[in-house]
Amino acid sequence: MKLKPLGDRVVVKLIEAEEKTAGGIVIPDKAKERPQEAEVIAVGPGKVLDNGQKLPIDLKVGDRVVLSKYAGTDFKFGEEEYLLLREDDVLAVIEK
Amino acid sequence: MKLKPLGDRVVVKLIEAEEKTAGGIVIPDKAKERPQEAEVIAVGPGKVLDNGQKLPIDLKVGDRVVLSKYAGTDFKFGEEEYLLLREDDVLAVIEK
Amino acid sequence: MKLKPLGDRVVVKLIEAEEKTAGGIVIPDKAKERPQEAEVIAVGPGKVLDNGQKLPIDLKVGDRVVLSKYAGTDFKFGEEEYLLLREDDVLAVIEK
Amino acid sequence: MKLKPLGDRVVVKLIEAEEKTAGGIVIPDKAKERPQEAEVIAVGPGKVLDNGQKLPIDLKVGDRVVLSKYAGTDFKFGEEEYLLLREDDVLAVIEK
Amino acid sequence: MKLKPLGDRVVVKLIEAEEKTAGGIVIPDKAKERPQEAEVIAVGPGKVLDNGQKLPIDLKVGDRVVLSKYAGTDFKFGEEEYLLLREDDVLAVIEK
Amino acid sequence: MKLKPLGDRVVVKLIEAEEKTAGGIVIPDKAKERPQEAEVIAVGPGKVLDNGQKLPIDLKVGDRVVLSKYAGTDFKFGEEEYLLLREDDVLAVIEK
Amino acid sequence: MKLKPLGDRVVVKLIEAEEKTAGGIVIPDKAKERPQEAEVIAVGPGKVLDNGQKLPIDLKVGDRVVLSKYAGTDFKFGEEEYLLLREDDVLAVIEK
Repeated sequence: MKLKPLGDRVVVKLIEAEEKTAGGIVIPDKAKERPQEAEVIAVGPGKVLDNGQKLPIDLKVGDRVVLSKYAGTDFKFGEEEYLLLREDDVLAVIEK
Repeated sequence: MKLKPLGDRVVVKLIEAEEKTAGGIVIPDKAKERPQEAEVIAVGPGKVLDNGQKLPIDLKVGDRVVLSKYAGTDFKFGEEEYLLLREDDVLAVIEK
Repeated sequence: MKLKPLGDRVVVKLIEAEEKTAGGIVIPDKAKERPQEAEVIAVGPGKVLDNGQKLPIDLKVGDRVVLSKYAGTDFKFGEEEYLLLREDDVLAVIEK
Repeated sequence: MKLKPLGDRVVVKLIEAEEKTAGGIVIPDKAKERPQEAEVIAVGPGKVLDNGQKLPIDLKVGDRVVLSKYAGTDFKFGEEEYLLLREDDVLAVIEK
Repeated sequence: MKLKPLGDRVVVKLIEAEEKTAGGIVIPDKAKERPQEAEVIAVGPGKVLDNGQKLPIDLKVGDRVVLSKYAGTDFKFGEEEYLLLREDDVLAVIEK
Repeated sequence: MKLKPLGDRVVVKLIEAEEKTAGGIVIPDKAKERPQEAEVIAVGPGKVLDNGQKLPIDLKVGDRVVLSKYAGTDFKFGEEEYLLLREDDVLAVIEK
Repeated sequence: MKLKPLGDRVVVKLIEAEEKTAGGIVIPDKAKERPQEAEVIAVGPGKVLDNGQKLPIDLKVGDRVVLSKYAGTDFKFGEEEYLLLREDDVLAVIEK
């Protein structure tokens, strides 16, 4: 992985939910909501507080996370689609 | 429970109010307002103040709480629907 | 009373003004403005300043107060309707 | 006077300007602008700065003041109409 | 002068620009833009910083100043029209 | 030069770009975008931080600068048109 | 390079993506989205925190970066088009 996020940003990869409805109907791409689950791919150094102290991000590579619904910037890198977003838009970690 | 909220966020489960009107008419799902009561399922570590001090969340798992009306992100996890929201959107604890 | 407000929030109960106009006409519920007076029912611990200091709320249970016009979240608790709002939306105390 | 404003709020009473135009035409109530002058009736304890220091309000009861045009909440108390507003919405004191 | 501005506010008197166009056509009042130049009539004590320190206003009575275009509250005092605005809406001093 | 900007403001004079298109067509004034280059004419003392420290402006008279596209207040002074804007709306210095 | 950005700003040069679709159709300029990748051309001294401390920018000349989608001001300098934007609008560095 070669994307190194800056400040309080993280890079994640969305985890696609199942693409059929219960009745077996395939949902076209446009009608799908963005999945809310993602895997953390890279973590920035964290933001700097007003007193100059750096606050490390409370996430690590490989964490499975729940995202806020509309945040972030998508970015195609090589063959893959990633999402770059602020730590504050990561709502929770899903623990195994 | 495997959802670990980040920062000043909490995970709650809404407590459905009774689903019939006084006259016994069933209210369809779309017409219902979101219930305002919820049970706390998980609590984040708390937010970090500008002076670097971490401020623990003043809630604990199992607390029954009153929520602000529109805040939060819903998230389906396993068979259950949860709501992830900031501590500041929890208005009060209902004490037994 | 079992509602324990969080942070800088307070629970109040609105004090209904007289419900007839001078000419004796009953005003229907929808046409009434929310009363501006209320009684304080419960008081939160107060907000935490950026330096970590907790600032106690300058109100006590039983205070009769003047509210800002549109602030707060109403909440039905048992048979009663309450209003949860921030200390900053309480404008003044009416002293006897 | 029994209204005790909270924080950085003050209670004032508007001073009605003359109610006739130069030509002697009475202006109906709805067409009148709110007067900009008022008398200070009560003064709150002042706001608390981020460092925990309380900042007293730079006004005293009886001061005649100039108000910002749309700020504040009006409140009928007994037979009188008052205006509750923040110290910051009082623009100047008129000195005799 | 009897207007004593509060906090970081100043009182100024607008300096009317010439009221004819180059061709000698008189411009009606409504079509005129507010002049950008003014004379400082009174200066408040200055705002208080978050650390409690008072910051004196960098203007003195008699200064000729350039104003931001839409800021401030006009106020008729005696026979004169004044403008009350924040120090931050005074852009520059015109030095002789 | 007699304009002395206040706080974190600077006075600049726009540098008009060439007024013909490649094909030699003169562009009427209204259709022209504001030039992005300017010369610094005067520099304020700088803004005061929340800790009371004055932060000098990182520009000097004569600097050729790139401006943000819509910021600032234009002001006619003598025969010249100037632009008053905040230091933060100056994006870069063009070094010779 | 002669552009010296101020404060927390950086100068970048966009890296055009390939200008044909998979089927070989040339996309006209207007229909193209702005590329998200850029090369860092110049880096400002960094912003000043509220405590007066200067925070250096975490980028260096030559870095290949991912940008936020709509931020920044474009500026034509000599024959080249640049983009001036805040460090916070640079999302990530692409490491080789």
